Amino acid sequence: VRTDRGQAEALDLADPLSAYRERFVRPDPQLIYLDGNSLGRLPIDTGRRLAEAVDEQWGRGLIRSWEAWIELSQAIGDEIAAGIVQADPGEIVLSDSTTVNLYKLAAAALDARPGRRVLLTDDDNFPTDSYVFQGLVQARGLELRVIETDLDVGLSTDAVRAALDQDVALASFSHVAYRSGAVADLHGVTAAVHDVGALVLWDLSHSAGSVHVPLRSSGADLAVGCTYKYLCGGPGAPAYLYVRRELQDTLRQPIWGWFGQRDQFAMDGRYDAAPGIGSFLVGTPPVLSMIGVQEGVRVVAEAGLDAVRAKGMALTSYLVDLADAWLVPLGFRLASPRDPRRRGAHVTLHHPDAWRICRALVERYDVVPDFRTPDRLRLGPAPLTTSYADVWDGLDRLRRLVEAGAHEAYPPQRTRVT
Amino acid sequence: VRTDRGQAEALDLADPLSAYRERFVRPDPQLIYLDGNSLGRLPIDTGRRLAEAVDEQWGRGLIRSWEAWIELSQAIGDEIAAGIVQADPGEIVLSDSTTVNLYKLAAAALDARPGRRVLLTDDDNFPTDSYVFQGLVQARGLELRVIETDLDVGLSTDAVRAALDQDVALASFSHVAYRSGAVADLHGVTAAVHDVGALVLWDLSHSAGSVHVPLRSSGADLAVGCTYKYLCGGPGAPAYLYVRRELQDTLRQPIWGWFGQRDQFAMDGRYDAAPGIGSFLVGTPPVLSMIGVQEGVRVVAEAGLDAVRAKGMALTSYLVDLADAWLVPLGFRLASPRDPRRRGAHVTLHHPDAWRICRALVERYDVVPDFRTPDRLRLGPAPLTTSYADVWDGLDRLRRLVEAGAHEAYPPQRTRVT
Repeated sequence: VRTDRGQAEALDLADPLSAYRERFVRPDPQLIYLDGNSLGRLPIDTGRRLAEAVDEQWGRGLIRSWEAWIELSQAIGDEIAAGIVQADPGEIVLSDSTTVNLYKLAAAALDARPGRRVLLTDDDNFPTDSYVFQGLVQARGLELRVIETDLDVGLSTDAVRAALDQDVALASFSHVAYRSGAVADLHGVTAAVHDVGALVLWDLSHSAGSVHVPLRSSGADLAVGCTYKYLCGGPGAPAYLYVRRELQDTLRQPIWGWFGQRDQFAMDGRYDAAPGIGSFLVGTPPVLSMIGVQEGVRVVAEAGLDAVRAKGMALTSYLVDLADAWLVPLGFRLASPRDPRRRGAHVTLHHPDAWRICRALVERYDVVPDFRTPDRLRLGPAPLTTSYADVWDGLDRLRRLVEAGAHEAYPPQRTRVT
Repeated sequence: VRTDRGQAEALDLADPLSAYRERFVRPDPQLIYLDGNSLGRLPIDTGRRLAEAVDEQWGRGLIRSWEAWIELSQAIGDEIAAGIVQADPGEIVLSDSTTVNLYKLAAAALDARPGRRVLLTDDDNFPTDSYVFQGLVQARGLELRVIETDLDVGLSTDAVRAALDQDVALASFSHVAYRSGAVADLHGVTAAVHDVGALVLWDLSHSAGSVHVPLRSSGADLAVGCTYKYLCGGPGAPAYLYVRRELQDTLRQPIWGWFGQRDQFAMDGRYDAAPGIGSFLVGTPPVLSMIGVQEGVRVVAEAGLDAVRAKGMALTSYLVDLADAWLVPLGFRLASPRDPRRRGAHVTLHHPDAWRICRALVERYDVVPDFRTPDRLRLGPAPLTTSYADVWDGLDRLRRLVEAGAHEAYPPQRTRVT
């Protein structure tokens, strides 16, 4: 394995996506940003489009602009279905936060399987998913069954199969694990869940926009995902949800609101759910944040998921090679799958001092990774905005930091906030 | 009553809030905008602040900007508590949409009164409120008791009292009626609801930022409100919710998410609700839209609710005078309370042809009002952004339109969307 910077530069020259880096704002060339999987960079087009939405649509058009805005939830959903995940038009809408969408879809699924007492998930699911499920099972007197997962390896389809039985109403997992980046077996897990007559709900937050998400061919029932990571929609931009077409008119989500009403502006007294995916909408969506999502989705879709996935595998493999050469001797351990096909677009490294290494890296070395509990450093070289040289520079600074002991000036553990 | 334009100009000269009109973008001086109660105008400072948030906070700061953003929900809530409604710090947060907040708070209230089977509301509440309640009572096998209201007069405290009994768990009403602008008796209704041991949930969407909202002194338990009307937060900007401090640690809302967790970034497996108002947060909020709310709230708070309320009463009284003189002879009827103290900052006129008059007014006369089912024209001269001359011009165009029969070219009724 070559570990000289020239190799990184050569890889960048051969990168078919390198031009996409110029589509994003990069005001600080010294910064190595390895957290595009937490908050994607700002597309240049987004700044322009937002300014126009503010000045022209809000400032000049005022209430009349709702004629255009009212379509956005479904239009952007269709763009995600066409360009980001594999789904049909009318199967995805932009709505609410990921958490609220998890609640809506999980509640609808539990209602659709009366008599079944179990919601199945795993202990490597994202915390907010787990919290939503805890709330739902407590309110309904159901049981949350939690599969124990090897945090470095990710969800095992066999373990899912072993945990499934006729008591399970709903099974819900992350497609890509937020810690390790492990990719779950969308087809195999979905089939196993269907074998016992349960429904499956996937969280795509760490997968959509970085790996293929074959919702249709897997037969997945339900999915949610966030838009501010690989989809570059902007901080806290609204989430999306997917409901397989065949289920749309039988599942009923619990939060009935005027955006889910069949004829919203009739202002009828009786709730009459909109047909299709529309009934999964609730209240007035944050328009400016939605427009950010549309621009972000367009950049990713234009690059194309095949190219994005290929670069994600190549970039993370390169990162793993450098980590093997430089960081393992310093006490790091790879805490992600080694096979790039089993890995999303981020890599996690275990180190007992991960917390303070992370602080020192941000504050003294101008590298932004992410800390993940309890002792992991998460490195997300987002394919559209990260070069091989960024990866080289980031890991080079990281090894120099640890060699110099620069992290020892920081408190050893994260302080608990109360 | 003087009906010449000179009178309007004289009133504008004497208006202590006239300078505030210059704080808002007004790219189209010919437009008479009488729908500030649906979507408030764009404050000039908001455009600047949003551009900075996009370029500097998102574009340059990236994930590191969450250090500032994480405080916004509560900080803006405190600004609303201090400057817009009467509440204490730590009693209001920005979160989700109004509809989702109605769901969260109504569900929490129903859970807090087990054994009581009734949710009480009235038939003049905003549709999304009614839909949320229909969904909740259906899911729980409860009853929605609906008070019949005279749509021109608004909620009667006596009628509320007559509908209350020991079966009522929660009563929920709009503080200002969305059609008529009638102001409900916040103190009297709250006291009546408390007399039977029930909780009360107020929707402030059409009141906050235009009338006084004495949450504290009335003893109101719960409230929600939207930010894109009188608070000028921008299209679909996130809503807020209020929970009286004494109730915060006993009420538990049903959507458990990581923003409501005591120590969010510990990423603990078990949900442990944050103390205080924090437990009413759910998922990642749309940051850009939140920033719009902060700027809008600041302009309104700076003007001060006393001045805003005084101008709202004066502007709508002037509008009613002109309507009496010009429009009643043309078949209009005032469909709002005549006493300005019983009226918010908008006025509704009944006319059998309201739908097509509304269309013609927008499309041919450059006046933007709002149509409200089944036959009402709603005129919202938002106090901070509307002059007396605007009201004069708007009503003058309206009478000329009807005199000319310009609305007769439009279809007589709104077409039902399916």
